[in-house]
Amino acid sequence: MMQPAEVRPFDMRLIQRGARLRRSPYFEATQRYGCRAYTVYNHMFLPSYYDDPVAEYWHLLEHVTLWDVSVERQVEITGPDALRFTQLLTPRDLSRCRVGAGRYALITAEDGGIINDPVLLRLGENHFWLALADSDVLLWAKGVAMRTDMRVEIREPDVSPLQVQGPKSRAVMEALFGDRVNDLPYYNFFETNLDGIPLVVTRTGWTGEVGYEIYLRDGSRGVELWERIMEAGAPHNIRPTGPSDIRRIEAGLLNYGADMTLDNNPYEVGLGRLVEPDKEAQFIGKDALRRIKAKGVTRKLVGVEIHADPLDLNETVWPVSSKGARVGMVTSAVYSPRLKRNIGYAMVPVAHAAVGTELLVETPLGAAKATVVTMPFVDPKKQIPRS
Amino acid sequence: MMQPAEVRPFDMRLIQRGARLRRSPYFEATQRYGCRAYTVYNHMFLPSYYDDPVAEYWHLLEHVTLWDVSVERQVEITGPDALRFTQLLTPRDLSRCRVGAGRYALITAEDGGIINDPVLLRLGENHFWLALADSDVLLWAKGVAMRTDMRVEIREPDVSPLQVQGPKSRAVMEALFGDRVNDLPYYNFFETNLDGIPLVVTRTGWTGEVGYEIYLRDGSRGVELWERIMEAGAPHNIRPTGPSDIRRIEAGLLNYGADMTLDNNPYEVGLGRLVEPDKEAQFIGKDALRRIKAKGVTRKLVGVEIHADPLDLNETVWPVSSKGARVGMVTSAVYSPRLKRNIGYAMVPVAHAAVGTELLVETPLGAAKATVVTMPFVDPKKQIPRS
Repeated sequence: MMQPAEVRPFDMRLIQRGARLRRSPYFEATQRYGCRAYTVYNHMFLPSYYDDPVAEYWHLLEHVTLWDVSVERQVEITGPDALRFTQLLTPRDLSRCRVGAGRYALITAEDGGIINDPVLLRLGENHFWLALADSDVLLWAKGVAMRTDMRVEIREPDVSPLQVQGPKSRAVMEALFGDRVNDLPYYNFFETNLDGIPLVVTRTGWTGEVGYEIYLRDGSRGVELWERIMEAGAPHNIRPTGPSDIRRIEAGLLNYGADMTLDNNPYEVGLGRLVEPDKEAQFIGKDALRRIKAKGVTRKLVGVEIHADPLDLNETVWPVSSKGARVGMVTSAVYSPRLKRNIGYAMVPVAHAAVGTELLVETPLGAAKATVVTMPFVDPKKQIPRS
Repeated sequence: MMQPAEVRPFDMRLIQRGARLRRSPYFEATQRYGCRAYTVYNHMFLPSYYDDPVAEYWHLLEHVTLWDVSVERQVEITGPDALRFTQLLTPRDLSRCRVGAGRYALITAEDGGIINDPVLLRLGENHFWLALADSDVLLWAKGVAMRTDMRVEIREPDVSPLQVQGPKSRAVMEALFGDRVNDLPYYNFFETNLDGIPLVVTRTGWTGEVGYEIYLRDGSRGVELWERIMEAGAPHNIRPTGPSDIRRIEAGLLNYGADMTLDNNPYEVGLGRLVEPDKEAQFIGKDALRRIKAKGVTRKLVGVEIHADPLDLNETVWPVSSKGARVGMVTSAVYSPRLKRNIGYAMVPVAHAAVGTELLVETPLGAAKATVVTMPFVDPKKQIPRS
């Protein structure tokens, strides 16, 4: 078992004053298992790492990891018009999303700006969950609903997801939930329970590795669920970690708030495929997005390789220039230990977005040359060996 | 000057992964002046303390303190219907708020629940700022606006407030802005500049002490403004600190997210005076709040004195019971060094809300008796000596 005998719990006073920010149902377990840093996401604490992030990255690639991502708060939409209303919120075509399936979806504003990029689950004909990135979509949805004639209820249910990610995650999930895990297509889910703990199990994750999420539906049973998973995972070398930025950048996955914000539209950040505007359905931002698509975007988020010594994950955006003029910024970048390169994303004008374009990036290690490259950095079909 | 020669900057990796959370225009100065902990508020870093919070409390009571509260993000509402739209958002009567004045205001949902408790400033007939507590009112306001016929623009401007609080704040502000500071009534403001730095100066704050806020309108000049204030404050013993929870609890001030949330209405948390429903104006929540007022609330936030050894500020809510049954929770509590008592707030059923009621509170130091008392704990008219 991973549980060291003498773990000094993280001093929460370094991040917390008072009871304003919420703790997850797994919080006590994350402290006991030696979480060394938390960040804040959706007004809650998110465990960042228990060990060196590079060690956690290798563990994710080779074994299986357990993440407390309760911060993926849900917005639940029910009521007779829930389908029509949820469709109003997103450019995904929900008429093709059957009960038991989910979608990676964008929530867009009237001008096409991105409000959030949740995983959407359809639990019933008129029953949806949005597992949110870091913005108060509950307020957005309530504001939008107020003046429609649609009969919907919008609330935050008692639901707290965990991610189980890595090549051995399938074996752990099979030990917990049996064969049905193997038949589960990507972005599908089933409802179940474990020793009476009510759960939703999805084939989703933020890694590009084989992975699952377990949505706990009873916050009072968080630690019990956590220990049950750790027990089932012990033969497979499971360990608690934070989300891996190295791995998600390798996979070309975006982090809302860093790589895309309300100021970006889906086409700028390479998520145009999530806009399905040819369908009949009305959704917020439809006209704006149609215009943007027809006109073309002026800037783009591109993959970059930064030619420098190994870089730690950026803590601020890094200025990008071309021929002495500032043209854009790096939004995420980090050294990939297996690619042995610094990889990341840069938001640049389309004139500088072609693969092969040379740029200059101001990093904490000094100015460094960078090259625009194709994404993702790691082909999901191809396994890359450790050395 | 307060600036020690050798300050080891706070390790941001303890709270940050990547560039998702924003740094304030004063961030570099807060690091240089030795900020020892940050929390997160409105997707930004908020300096919590530079020294022991009790030492910072005494400094606030006896001298003057400078706080980086850039996290009070603004929602700016302009356009021909800005007055009517802003009125729609709040139960305050804005017809009585003239240009140059502000209000402590609530933003309420359709069911009367509290979405936020900003300071509202009226900069023009149809020009408003909401200086926000920790929730995405930008999304709420945009959602509400979408389906009205009102012509408004809603955006987050480049505005970053500082608080200058404490008995010597008036002298510091006079040194910076001259006599006009002395004539400024509570919740009023003026627009000005300092060496060309565009500012709004308000007579507001989160302390119950004499205090001001300086709203910077050009994020590129944050550090320059900070140093200018530190220089003017040097003869008055100014020092950078975090917001003081001890002082704000003494004053009976509430912290959104802890002492009130979307699940609370104004009457429950003692803010019924901010609902002015007899006026003609339409606002969101008007019908619900009228019903709640007529019916009476079922629970109330009350002042409590907790009879125990000195308690650190609570990090979670503390269960409250009466005769063996759980009846409520303490939302904020801390030891007041000058009152020499543990003081705080508890949300309890009205049957347990009368002054003098005895309760039992589960604190980290064990179960402790508590008594319901009147608020505020410190009369704003009365100075309480240090010993």
